[in-house]
Amino acid sequence: MGIDVGGQSSKLGVVNANGEILAQCVVSSLQTELKDYLKDLTDAIKDLIAKTADQGTVKGIGIGAPNGNYYKGTIEYAPNLKWTYIDGQPTVIEFAKLISGEVGLPVTVTNDANAAAMGEMAYGTAKGMKNFIMITLGTGVGSGIVIDGKMVYGHDGFAGELGHVCVVPGGRKCNCGLEGCLETYTSAMGVARTARHMLAEDKRDSLLRKFDPENISSKDVYDAAKEGDEMALEIFNYTGSLLVIFGGMAKSKEYFHGALVKSMNDNLMKIWKNKIQILYSSLKESDAAILGASALAWD
Amino acid sequence: MGIDVGGQSSKLGVVNANGEILAQCVVSSLQTELKDYLKDLTDAIKDLIAKTADQGTVKGIGIGAPNGNYYKGTIEYAPNLKWTYIDGQPTVIEFAKLISGEVGLPVTVTNDANAAAMGEMAYGTAKGMKNFIMITLGTGVGSGIVIDGKMVYGHDGFAGELGHVCVVPGGRKCNCGLEGCLETYTSAMGVARTARHMLAEDKRDSLLRKFDPENISSKDVYDAAKEGDEMALEIFNYTGSLLVIFGGMAKSKEYFHGALVKSMNDNLMKIWKNKIQILYSSLKESDAAILGASALAWD
Repeated sequence: MGIDVGGQSSKLGVVNANGEILAQCVVSSLQTELKDYLKDLTDAIKDLIAKTADQGTVKGIGIGAPNGNYYKGTIEYAPNLKWTYIDGQPTVIEFAKLISGEVGLPVTVTNDANAAAMGEMAYGTAKGMKNFIMITLGTGVGSGIVIDGKMVYGHDGFAGELGHVCVVPGGRKCNCGLEGCLETYTSAMGVARTARHMLAEDKRDSLLRKFDPENISSKDVYDAAKEGDEMALEIFNYTGSLLVIFGGMAKSKEYFHGALVKSMNDNLMKIWKNKIQILYSSLKESDAAILGASALAWD
Repeated sequence: MGIDVGGQSSKLGVVNANGEILAQCVVSSLQTELKDYLKDLTDAIKDLIAKTADQGTVKGIGIGAPNGNYYKGTIEYAPNLKWTYIDGQPTVIEFAKLISGEVGLPVTVTNDANAAAMGEMAYGTAKGMKNFIMITLGTGVGSGIVIDGKMVYGHDGFAGELGHVCVVPGGRKCNCGLEGCLETYTSAMGVARTARHMLAEDKRDSLLRKFDPENISSKDVYDAAKEGDEMALEIFNYTGSLLVIFGGMAKSKEYFHGALVKSMNDNLMKIWKNKIQILYSSLKESDAAILGASALAWD
């Protein structure tokens, strides 16, 4: 079974060895009490196991979660998961142990971007690849690094937070407390921030002017880019040039792929020219996270 | 046997399993013809083997060289090695094959920073560490990355050129053809460039004013810092803040270590605070490269 724990909802799926999802369901992740979230999640797990009992036995559970720690089975200081909070601060949750204790199966946890990388390696675009970086784009920017066919977890299990590498020294303030993080420019939120900035600094006419800048979204920018709006195209151009390598926001890729490839080649040493491919996920978005988490369970 | 191929000279040493150098010698690397360099080097290899014959048999040769490729045994487009040039351009040399053919022993090649990392892991500060980055500072900045106890070579054998990561977008022009590379700020050459820049832009008095800016060296800046010169200290402060992690220029470390640690902590996510150590090589500089290359041969 693969479980993708997100800020809004958690997706569960029973996956066979061929990567087919036999059954799936979704539970809310918005509970504010740990015990309420655990009850809903473990009920759903048991329900799915019962539903697929005639097709075989669930051997284990892999979970991809924000700030999931592979070595310790914990979720640590995840700002987007309210049920991890105590006294207004996110804490460390012994997630694998809690779930395993309740359902009696081995449980492995990793961060959501690592799970996505494992999904792509087992079933997706990265099938057969030994060295690649998966970059996931949602509200934030996540990354999973595979070297010589193995996930890189690092000394403490948190290796590879590319979203929090500084790309603009002294730049935009990030939720993580640092400044100028890649995530503040190239996530969906980052695209919206760029749009707000351009609307304020730039006097050009644009389809984006019909939106309240405070509430503008990356979807609005995408829609404007589709209409050929110059400012919207420039926003994606800027995003692509900072991103260099990028995995998600699939719909908008036609608008940033050119800037992305140009920026990568401009910043690449001669020995690597034409050796690095930029590929996009071939998995259905809703399935990728479940498949990735399940790949972890097989492993 | 470990061999460290440098731009000026190549150091050779016969090393036993305890990491003791039984015999060593140095040959010039300044030859402009490949056949001349090969003759001098293989003569020295045979000579060292003969000299240590009574203490055991040399089993293999490990070589650390600029742009050395572990997978292919080649040295590829190394601008600082004149004997790799054909028609004024550095080329690809089948180095392992050429040496092995001449001396009849297995030969493995890697880049010089990887060899240094292996040396530290086998015999130095990184003994027992599974996850670390070795950064070497000379004319340029090299890096070797170890993950889970193994060198990272990457898809093509050239993984981890941290010296050519852009730290200042649109910044200083680098020999590699890119702009703003770490190497242009934090190598010995980079320190000299910073000194030239400060001497031109800044009207303060300084011990550095007695030097011709065109010929000022990092050693001059170090000497001035030792005297408490404000501008020299500021140069190392700037270097340390850009460097973040750093391995060599051992003598100057007292002047940049503070800025280095502060900059690292300022740019570090909460989950990693106080988990990352900055350590300096414990190997004698002249031995480190030979030991590192020899570790490759044992491997």
